[in-house]
Amino acid sequence: MDIQYDVVIVGSGPAGLTAAIYASRANLKTVILEADTPGGKLTKTYEIENYPGIAKISGVDLAMQMMEHSGNWGAEIEYDGCEKVIPHEGYFEVVLTSGNVMTTKTVIVASGTRERLLDLPHATEFTGRGISYCAVCDGAFYKNKDVVVIGGGNSALEESLYLTQLVNRVYIVIRRDVFRAEPKVVEKVRSNPKITLITKSLPDALVIEDNKVTGLVIKNVDSGELTTLDCAGIFPYIGADPATGFLQDLGVLNKNGYMEVDRNMETAIKGLYGAGDVVVKDLRQVVTATNDGAIAANSAARKING
Amino acid sequence: MDIQYDVVIVGSGPAGLTAAIYASRANLKTVILEADTPGGKLTKTYEIENYPGIAKISGVDLAMQMMEHSGNWGAEIEYDGCEKVIPHEGYFEVVLTSGNVMTTKTVIVASGTRERLLDLPHATEFTGRGISYCAVCDGAFYKNKDVVVIGGGNSALEESLYLTQLVNRVYIVIRRDVFRAEPKVVEKVRSNPKITLITKSLPDALVIEDNKVTGLVIKNVDSGELTTLDCAGIFPYIGADPATGFLQDLGVLNKNGYMEVDRNMETAIKGLYGAGDVVVKDLRQVVTATNDGAIAANSAARKING
Repeated sequence: MDIQYDVVIVGSGPAGLTAAIYASRANLKTVILEADTPGGKLTKTYEIENYPGIAKISGVDLAMQMMEHSGNWGAEIEYDGCEKVIPHEGYFEVVLTSGNVMTTKTVIVASGTRERLLDLPHATEFTGRGISYCAVCDGAFYKNKDVVVIGGGNSALEESLYLTQLVNRVYIVIRRDVFRAEPKVVEKVRSNPKITLITKSLPDALVIEDNKVTGLVIKNVDSGELTTLDCAGIFPYIGADPATGFLQDLGVLNKNGYMEVDRNMETAIKGLYGAGDVVVKDLRQVVTATNDGAIAANSAARKING
Repeated sequence: MDIQYDVVIVGSGPAGLTAAIYASRANLKTVILEADTPGGKLTKTYEIENYPGIAKISGVDLAMQMMEHSGNWGAEIEYDGCEKVIPHEGYFEVVLTSGNVMTTKTVIVASGTRERLLDLPHATEFTGRGISYCAVCDGAFYKNKDVVVIGGGNSALEESLYLTQLVNRVYIVIRRDVFRAEPKVVEKVRSNPKITLITKSLPDALVIEDNKVTGLVIKNVDSGELTTLDCAGIFPYIGADPATGFLQDLGVLNKNGYMEVDRNMETAIKGLYGAGDVVVKDLRQVVTATNDGAIAANSAARKING
C-alpha cells in the first residue's frame, strides 16, 4: 500500500517544529498537525530570555521564526487535530478531527501539556503579564518584587524556592494545611525566610490597577475571611495535564498521562515517538523541547532509512 | 571556608554558554573557563541551518550571540584552561593551567571534543601549513587550489560545500560507499560540480615537495591500489575524542573518555555535571548541547539552593 508520509508530527511547539526541521533535512516526507495556534506554549509566553543566542524575543516571534524555519526545509503544516493514532504492522493511521485519515511510517507526538488555568475573572487577560505558569521562564521579571505562588505540590514549592533567589518575598497559598509535596521540599520551604505560607486559603479575585496585576485577594476556607496580598506576579501551579487523550489506549503513557520514552525518544510502540513537554521529564523548557524534537526526528530517520 | 563560586563551567560552546545563562538567571555566581576561542566548535563551523528559529547563521555569529547572551546575566569568563578537578566534602578545587586554583560548589564540564588528528608520517609537522582541521579558519589559504577533505559525516560534507566557494576543486575521500551525513547535505554534495567523490579509499601517505604538501596518496580498500591526488591542502574530518583528560582519575568517564551522567546531567560525583558533546549520547548537535547545559545548570541551582 501507499503510505502518505514518512512522519506525522502532532503539535507545532518548539519540539514539533524542531522535529520538522530535522526530519525534512533528512529528506523525510513530513507533515505537522496543529489544532490550535502554531507555536504551542511559546505563544502564551510574553518574553523568552533564555533561548541561547537570542537575548530577548517574544514567544510569538520565536514561534513564528521556528515555523518559518521548519517550512524552509519542506515540512507541510495541516491545521487539524489528532483524534487517534492506530498502529498497524509497519505503519500508522492517524485519525484527524476533520474525519480525514493519514497514513504514515512514523509518528512524533509533541502535543505538550495544558496547564490547569487560574479560574478567576481577568486571569486569561493577564496571563504573560502578571500571571505566569513558568517561574523558570519568567521569574527574572519579578526581581526584588513580591509574588504569590498558588499550590502545594512539588512544582509549586520547587518553583517557590527558585523564585526566592530572585524576588523579595514569595507568598505560597494552599487550600489545606498540609502539602502534597515531598517532606524534604516542604522542610526547605518552611525554613526559607523569604517565603510566607498561607494555608487554608483559596484565590478569590485579582487586584488590577493601571492595567497591571498589583495583588491577589484570597479567602480563608474556614472563616470565609478575605485578605489582599500585594504582589506584582502570580504563579498558579495548580497542575498541568499532558495533551495525550488520543494515545490513551496504546499503553505508552504513565499514570499521569505523560509519554514514556527511551533515550531515542521512542515509546514501547516502535515508530511512535514523544518529544517536548508531553514526555516524562524534569525540566520543561524551549531548549529541552528542541533537543527532544531533534532526537525523535533523527531516530525516525534512522528507522526509515535503515 | 569561603567558596569563590557557585558554579565553574569548563568550556564556552553552546552547552557551556547555555549553562551560564541558566545558572546566572538562577542567581548563581558563575564563571566560564575557556582555554581557546570562545564559542567552542561553533567557531569552526561555517554555517548553521538547524538551530531552530535562526534559519541560517555563521557559526562565529551564533557563538558571539550566545557569548553576549550569557554575559547579559552576569556570568564571568576566564581565559584559562582546566587541568584538574579535585572533589572535596561539599566543594571542588579547580586547578587552572595558569597555576591558579578556584574553589566552587559545583562544576559543569562542557569541554566538548577535539578532532582526531590525521595519523600519517609528517602530519603533525604540516598541521597549519597544508593540513587543517578548520575549513572556516584556513579555507582562504587555498583559494583556487585543489584540496582533499577526508570523511563522510555531516561536518566533512558541510565544510566541503563551504570550501567550494573558495577553492578550485574538492576531493572527498571516504572509506565506505555510503555517507553518515544527512541526505539533504549528501544531495548538495552530489550535485556540486566542484566536488569529486572518491569512495572506498583511505589516506595512505602525504606527498611533500619543497617542504610543502603537494598531494595525498590514497589506497583503495578493496584492491589496495594506490592513487595520488594532487592538492595543496588536506582537511581531515575523521572523528573526534572527548576533551576529558583532566577528569581521568575521577571514575566518571566511559572507556572512550566520554562523561557518564544521569538524567540530571550529574556524574557519580555529586555536584559534578557534564553537558554537550562531552557526555555519552547519540546525537551531537547545537540543540542537544543547549538542552544539556540548561539541565545541568538547573540541577546545580537546585542542589545549591537546598
